[in-house]
Amino acid sequence: MDADSVVATLATTARVAARTLSSSLGSDRKMALFSIADEMEKQSSLILIANSKDMERGRAVGLSPQLLDRLLLTPERISGMAVGARNVANLPDPLRVIVRESVLPNGLHLRQMTVPFGVVGMVYEARPNVTVDAAVILLMSGNAALLRGSSSAASTNAVLVAVMREALERTVISPEVIQLVPSDNRETVNALLHARGKVDLVIPRGSAELIQMVVDEATVPTIETGAGVCHVYVDEFADFAKAISILINSKVQRPSVCNAAETLLVNSAIAEKFLPMALNALKEEGVVLHCDEKVQSVAHELGISSSPIGEANWSTEYGTLEMNVGIVDSVEKAIDHIAKYGTGHTEAIVTESQAAAERFITLSDCAAVMVNASTRFTDGEQMGFGAEIGISNQKLHARGPMGLEAMTTTTWIVTGTGQIRS
Amino acid sequence: MDADSVVATLATTARVAARTLSSSLGSDRKMALFSIADEMEKQSSLILIANSKDMERGRAVGLSPQLLDRLLLTPERISGMAVGARNVANLPDPLRVIVRESVLPNGLHLRQMTVPFGVVGMVYEARPNVTVDAAVILLMSGNAALLRGSSSAASTNAVLVAVMREALERTVISPEVIQLVPSDNRETVNALLHARGKVDLVIPRGSAELIQMVVDEATVPTIETGAGVCHVYVDEFADFAKAISILINSKVQRPSVCNAAETLLVNSAIAEKFLPMALNALKEEGVVLHCDEKVQSVAHELGISSSPIGEANWSTEYGTLEMNVGIVDSVEKAIDHIAKYGTGHTEAIVTESQAAAERFITLSDCAAVMVNASTRFTDGEQMGFGAEIGISNQKLHARGPMGLEAMTTTTWIVTGTGQIRS
Repeated sequence: MDADSVVATLATTARVAARTLSSSLGSDRKMALFSIADEMEKQSSLILIANSKDMERGRAVGLSPQLLDRLLLTPERISGMAVGARNVANLPDPLRVIVRESVLPNGLHLRQMTVPFGVVGMVYEARPNVTVDAAVILLMSGNAALLRGSSSAASTNAVLVAVMREALERTVISPEVIQLVPSDNRETVNALLHARGKVDLVIPRGSAELIQMVVDEATVPTIETGAGVCHVYVDEFADFAKAISILINSKVQRPSVCNAAETLLVNSAIAEKFLPMALNALKEEGVVLHCDEKVQSVAHELGISSSPIGEANWSTEYGTLEMNVGIVDSVEKAIDHIAKYGTGHTEAIVTESQAAAERFITLSDCAAVMVNASTRFTDGEQMGFGAEIGISNQKLHARGPMGLEAMTTTTWIVTGTGQIRS
Repeated sequence: MDADSVVATLATTARVAARTLSSSLGSDRKMALFSIADEMEKQSSLILIANSKDMERGRAVGLSPQLLDRLLLTPERISGMAVGARNVANLPDPLRVIVRESVLPNGLHLRQMTVPFGVVGMVYEARPNVTVDAAVILLMSGNAALLRGSSSAASTNAVLVAVMREALERTVISPEVIQLVPSDNRETVNALLHARGKVDLVIPRGSAELIQMVVDEATVPTIETGAGVCHVYVDEFADFAKAISILINSKVQRPSVCNAAETLLVNSAIAEKFLPMALNALKEEGVVLHCDEKVQSVAHELGISSSPIGEANWSTEYGTLEMNVGIVDSVEKAIDHIAKYGTGHTEAIVTESQAAAERFITLSDCAAVMVNASTRFTDGEQMGFGAEIGISNQKLHARGPMGLEAMTTTTWIVTGTGQIRS
């Protein structure tokens, strides 16, 4: 069978099975997730054996230590997945929520109700925990899951899916709602991206290249996730202590993730006072600096080494302890800079001026604006969603962290007594 | 300049101008729409002259009477557009609505707020009223509009856009928020569909071919609109009088539109009694029948001519007075049929059984379910939205009729007092 047929068959099987989800109660899905969590813990050693095969193969083909770390499962990481599943199980049921309701003049009763998408594909890279995290979020939101992980995690993913399906055998949910898409060739990704009408949505998670490929290729609806060139703008009316603490936390706390900051913009009115504090603080944390001309001369006076900034730096997501620093003359100029180089993820302003904050909010075009808070708060857990299937970097459907609710669509239920249009 | 550069320039100009929208008050946008409505009426004769040029050219190239009718503007149609603009102006402001709000344990104040997309492209066919209808909905929802109409309506569209821009000169909204994309070559459509990062969303309106092309080609996010193979299922527990009235209204009242019904499915338990009534009623309205074998034999006994149904008929959107008729054994079998041949637009059930209605709702996978009501009610005006930019036939972002709200996205506003992540 060619890849298109493989994916079509999996999708069709999944869609039929998904009826056991769309007609289930929230309590049924909750039970299913608890069953998955229990089974994961019970089968922990089986999972670790499969994982050690992937690790061995990974070492043999020379995967980087970073990739190997992502691939690795430990007893702690497995119980982390089980805890995650139980947390999702305890969230409010996202289905059959009446979003809007009205009675029309002709007596028709109109309700807009949340329902599952149906069949959702995930295309992701090394981390095998995505296999479980995604499956439980999709199941809880009533969707069948087509999981296309990395070939480097093939053995682990196969066992994780087998364990989850086994757990579903004891529930009213069909095990066929979880399908593993073979990762032995690239063609299955392509087939998934073109299974229009069979797959309702594909979500990519992984590198910028993977996401770009999915967005470029897919004819199935997709949600772009990921890239974050986030800015911290320190306003003329900033509290400096807050500014330093937010700056350092945004850059340093976990530089590899998308909500870490890449660029510091400082209002010219306070540059002279604030920059020495900021540059020293960044230096202390070992941050490599790329500075515009004025900032470079300040750094030079302080004896802090920095490199001149190039156009490309401003739009680079370093993911490491590197940072761009520039001076701007106003909130508007900060926004101009961000509009030019940002990715619409998270932008922070540090200011005590309500007017400046309002102006920054109004002119920003991004998933999240932070006023006097770290950029690192753009996160489903932190925002209290209880779970996150990714951070949407697009404006259609969902923007920012996506929880259970983002995995639903709606249907209009119109109830009448024989009404017709005149 | 090549088409890509033309579109890029228009999009960039529009995005800068869109700041006058995103920072405007609802009352500013309301004024702008009133100004547009007034100017349309004032410049009515200028618009009619331009339209007569398009009509002349249309006749010369042999456009069908149907297309010519769509192209035609009359004083009544122009005031219809003006009235439409005033209606939209009077709708509640869809921007800066707080959709969700919470205070997190760490004191962060979280708000999810509606904001405009930014720059929205429309690709549409003959009807010049879309130029105005779309522009006013987009403006009211804070978006700049890139309008790519049909070359057959080029003169009319040029004047309509000029009139709207002139009207904006008297307001705080920049006239540059409305941009006409040249329709003198197909390349501009292509450029619009690939202007990723420059255009936030493209909405196609028109034929199934146009919509399919946009969905297949676009790398910019799009919303699929349109195709409707809608079903009326008459259940075992149907009230026959309601069923006949809903059937005829769904099929006959305006067969050319997407929410008209194409297929009647009758429960086998009532087929013997109900079918003669239904077939006679459809015959009286001049509906051409395509019937499954059992229905054909009933029709034959009644002396009503019908043709045998082919597989392709079941999935055809006739748009004319033709209808498929089949027998199914249960709600589940009706849903199986609909899942196989439907387009997920609107499905109706006629039944007095609450259980059957609930089952039909739960298993349906479509934008709107009608319980004892005509399929023709899937419509923004009818549902009380006050305006409609199209009917979404996809599950992502918006499903069913799209009003002002569907033309917004959201942003998270997180306000703190210096919070950082630990």
